[in-house]
Amino acid sequence: MGNCLVAQSGGPTAVINASLAGVIRANQLNPVYGRVLGGIHGIEGVLAGRLFDLTDLPAREIEVLKQTPSSALGTCRYKLKRGNDADYRRLVEVMDAHDVDVMFYIGGNDSMDTVDALSEWAAANGCAKRFVGIPKTVDNDLVPVDHCPGFPSAAKLANLVTHATRLDYDAYERPEVFVLETMGRDAGWLAASCCVSGDVDLLLLPEAPFDRDAFLAQVQRKMDETGACYIVVSEGARYADGTYLAADDTANDGFAHAVLGGAALTLKQMIVDAGIAPRGVVQDLSRAARSSNFAQSLVDMTEAYELGLSAHMRSADPAFTGMVVGVAPRADLDAPYEARFFAGPAGEFANYVRQLPAEWILPDYQGVSDEALRYFAPLIEGEPKLVYEHGLPATVVPFNRR
Amino acid sequence: MGNCLVAQSGGPTAVINASLAGVIRANQLNPVYGRVLGGIHGIEGVLAGRLFDLTDLPAREIEVLKQTPSSALGTCRYKLKRGNDADYRRLVEVMDAHDVDVMFYIGGNDSMDTVDALSEWAAANGCAKRFVGIPKTVDNDLVPVDHCPGFPSAAKLANLVTHATRLDYDAYERPEVFVLETMGRDAGWLAASCCVSGDVDLLLLPEAPFDRDAFLAQVQRKMDETGACYIVVSEGARYADGTYLAADDTANDGFAHAVLGGAALTLKQMIVDAGIAPRGVVQDLSRAARSSNFAQSLVDMTEAYELGLSAHMRSADPAFTGMVVGVAPRADLDAPYEARFFAGPAGEFANYVRQLPAEWILPDYQGVSDEALRYFAPLIEGEPKLVYEHGLPATVVPFNRR
Repeated sequence: MGNCLVAQSGGPTAVINASLAGVIRANQLNPVYGRVLGGIHGIEGVLAGRLFDLTDLPAREIEVLKQTPSSALGTCRYKLKRGNDADYRRLVEVMDAHDVDVMFYIGGNDSMDTVDALSEWAAANGCAKRFVGIPKTVDNDLVPVDHCPGFPSAAKLANLVTHATRLDYDAYERPEVFVLETMGRDAGWLAASCCVSGDVDLLLLPEAPFDRDAFLAQVQRKMDETGACYIVVSEGARYADGTYLAADDTANDGFAHAVLGGAALTLKQMIVDAGIAPRGVVQDLSRAARSSNFAQSLVDMTEAYELGLSAHMRSADPAFTGMVVGVAPRADLDAPYEARFFAGPAGEFANYVRQLPAEWILPDYQGVSDEALRYFAPLIEGEPKLVYEHGLPATVVPFNRR
Repeated sequence: MGNCLVAQSGGPTAVINASLAGVIRANQLNPVYGRVLGGIHGIEGVLAGRLFDLTDLPAREIEVLKQTPSSALGTCRYKLKRGNDADYRRLVEVMDAHDVDVMFYIGGNDSMDTVDALSEWAAANGCAKRFVGIPKTVDNDLVPVDHCPGFPSAAKLANLVTHATRLDYDAYERPEVFVLETMGRDAGWLAASCCVSGDVDLLLLPEAPFDRDAFLAQVQRKMDETGACYIVVSEGARYADGTYLAADDTANDGFAHAVLGGAALTLKQMIVDAGIAPRGVVQDLSRAARSSNFAQSLVDMTEAYELGLSAHMRSADPAFTGMVVGVAPRADLDAPYEARFFAGPAGEFANYVRQLPAEWILPDYQGVSDEALRYFAPLIEGEPKLVYEHGLPATVVPFNRR
């Protein structure tokens, strides 16, 4: 066989590099491909022919790569549009020029759509190139999986911050509300996961329409009953008519998504204006949550690495294309946690947004059900033993900056 | 001897409970005092007679207390004003009622002023009660010490987040600025410490007056030269006339300090409005930085604990009052780091704000000198071995919530 290509796309995570490390390591254990080439800045860099040879990355550097957050190859938000024959032909040209047979694409649901579209196009055009997806997203919104690599570590950090800031908040007696904002545009997985800490009084999700009066009544009730109200809000929380609690319409992220942020500030002001508390504290997790290397979940890092191994190993089958590897949904949330790996058609992963099951969401912003907690709890278990240098976890120099 | 009392005041830190643990443990090793009583919610709770008996806290709970962030006794912002005889007499009344001879007060410079004022008042009024201070503050702004317990852990978390978010930022090629905001009202220690990570392009401190044009010119230069500009700003950054980059004048914290926040947002908007970058990302560390239990510095936790031990041990001397324990300034920043403990009069700790030395601050917002880095670097070294439960570090139930 010839060479393989691996690239990363979309928002970075704490463990997306562990999947990259898995692909590289698998080929050292079984050199199915002559070279493992990294595409710099996702499909955008690949189209420009920017590649980095990862084949012989030393074992120690692979270990450090596993614990390096963010996308070590660089990322992009460029989407290969279906029907854009010019881009597709250019990609195949680059693959041909470097003798690449298989491309691994590590990304979210837009990237899984790219894998689907490319494999369809290849089949329709008699092109033997193959395309394999490895999922990642802190949003946890892919459909056919139990969860997405990247989400458990984000959830672990969110729980760590929830618990620590709740203790900080509880040290005071003064009347005050606390509002923590997490990522989560269309699905509230990350915000909901914070309930594992046991510290959340009220939870606002994109899945549960926001009603100002009903919400303020709950805040008032919590303040009356306990003198405190700790609120977690997903950035995508919205009114029934779809209006976000906060949105900056002047900016977008290149995919024509609105850039969100500020829901927590909006809520704090709403509560103060209503006279329920004279002040409030806002903590926005935004970027700090998704690429932390100081709060990786061992479950997450292990699975992300093993999904990289699995994708490489399955790709030895010459019929394996247009497929994505993943962790299968658990049959029984009460059984001891055990990841079961599978591969499915990329089309099933792409462009659907999996929301939190409606039956997991308690009424009146009261958080999530016990079943939901049993889903979340095992994912944040375990801490990898990190290599530290001078008081900080060691990281590799990103390949896009070499 | 009779009993002792220990209380916490001011903003919580990641290791303020380690100092509390030190006092409790010291008395188990050498029961100088019959009982160790915790004052709930600082001086405010003590005046109200709210005490919690900590004498026989089990060793395992003391270990978990050491790793529990925030103030486990609760805190307050109530300041005993000099000359407020009524409060002083009430405090002595409570101490008498519980046979308390010595009070340990763990807090920032307002609290050290309280220790000073109480010991002066006792001397002037023939009262044998004694008062001992144990410093803490993430702001690191006490005068006669090398650094304050709490600061190294906040600096470690700030560096972890700086490095992780820099990697996240560097994964993209699009023109964008990143602005990280840290605590630090009148002194930029925490913001400056972020330079240890090696990731900071521009640094804005309260100590270096903000000049809009000069700053924007530096942002433009960094963007032109490297395509990136990662900025760290202290919440207290201000113009030459003292105007904060961002201040909410509608709220204050009870000490008539303005409540700050939003400097990073202001900068981002300034850069976008100037047309230097079409967008920017803001991360506010605020509360997440000061009470984290997932990024404690081992140096910090050890010193905070040992200062608690030291305060208790020194207090066996019946002449020991109006004193504060601390880590003495290093004579030589190039020598291997070694904490040297001392005790000094509380008046020397109180009400002065130690700013970053002017000679450590590089011109044009370029960060700090090598000497500054040699000061900061050893403080963030080492990671305590934490006890985890269900994926999160174990914490004690705060005594003010029992």
